[in-house]
Amino acid sequence: MVQIEQDILGKNNQYAAANRRWFSERGILALNLVSSPGSGKTSLLTRTIDDIKGQTPVAVIEGDQQSANDAERIRETGAKALQINTGKGCHLDAHMVGHGLESLEPEENGIVFIENVGNLVCPAAFDLGEAHKVVILSVTEGEDKPLKYPNMFAAASLMLVSKVDLLPHLDFDVEQLIANARRVNPGINVIQVSATTAQGMDRWLAWIAGAAAMASASA
Amino acid sequence: MVQIEQDILGKNNQYAAANRRWFSERGILALNLVSSPGSGKTSLLTRTIDDIKGQTPVAVIEGDQQSANDAERIRETGAKALQINTGKGCHLDAHMVGHGLESLEPEENGIVFIENVGNLVCPAAFDLGEAHKVVILSVTEGEDKPLKYPNMFAAASLMLVSKVDLLPHLDFDVEQLIANARRVNPGINVIQVSATTAQGMDRWLAWIAGAAAMASASA
Repeated sequence: MVQIEQDILGKNNQYAAANRRWFSERGILALNLVSSPGSGKTSLLTRTIDDIKGQTPVAVIEGDQQSANDAERIRETGAKALQINTGKGCHLDAHMVGHGLESLEPEENGIVFIENVGNLVCPAAFDLGEAHKVVILSVTEGEDKPLKYPNMFAAASLMLVSKVDLLPHLDFDVEQLIANARRVNPGINVIQVSATTAQGMDRWLAWIAGAAAMASASA
Repeated sequence: MVQIEQDILGKNNQYAAANRRWFSERGILALNLVSSPGSGKTSLLTRTIDDIKGQTPVAVIEGDQQSANDAERIRETGAKALQINTGKGCHLDAHMVGHGLESLEPEENGIVFIENVGNLVCPAAFDLGEAHKVVILSVTEGEDKPLKYPNMFAAASLMLVSKVDLLPHLDFDVEQLIANARRVNPGINVIQVSATTAQGMDRWLAWIAGAAAMASASA
């Protein structure tokens, strides 16, 4: 069983390396967005695309077990979007993403957002060739999530704390959440955002711009 | 023995977390430069400081077992520098760096470079509170170094391949080096640089600027 798992991950890593070269050759920043279902990923993403599409070409790969709803929501922003249905699978893998890129044809020197299947476990282990995993956790979830799903928070460069406009109505301790995230990943970046009020969107966009500069500066 | 090591690392991680908060509150980007002795770290650093000191305040913590030579070289650029001598120790630790910051007093919204003791083993395990470890490997060393010292290359966000002006005179396979680095760290960024000819300095400076944007955008 362990051997099978290693074989699957080893194969995935080869495809991920190919994707990473593909992105690098085209000066594309790829971000892998991961969260549990209902964190507000797609709302945050449509707002993000609205804010940056004037300056930077954006394309999106949407991963869901079923339905093409999310890709349709993304296309309404004017961005290219491709839906991948994973069926019984609880995560995207690098092979699916590689094929997705061929048909999506994202523009050079742009950004590809990969919205993974809503799941805080499976996507952690699967490198898709992204520059960074970004984990989104809404304040309607629990402060203990980083301790319960440490692999995901350890693998992410950034935690977006979403729906912070709801904080006045909730008994949620953001500082405790951040402390828990830092227990499993001391260097994780944290930005508090709301797609409703736009709080923190300037920081999130600045973070993306910085990541894009780092990606295009290096091989 | 394992218990003692865990205690030392646990204490170090607490100090590192405090340093990270200290940097974050001041909008400072901290980079931890690691390499074997003779990689050209200090030459690269003085050239880097010359290029950015007009726009961004820079301060440097120099770690060496003995001597204050490197801090003196840095001060000639006009940047603040503090020498820490580790004596028998083969790496800086977060406690030393915390005290160093108190006397160095780096300016807000600037960059602190921490030039670690020349060693490809010990510094890998010690988080100093930096945003990124940057590993420097010169083309006069061997392509196999990432495989021999995997912890260091796994811990680094960026590998600077230094002294590339010497490549025409050497039998060194840069692509093999990069492939080896990616075997231990698939997502590592790579930039080829020469402090002598300035090749790649623009990319290295752009990478730093991107990292600074990410650091100041997030908590």
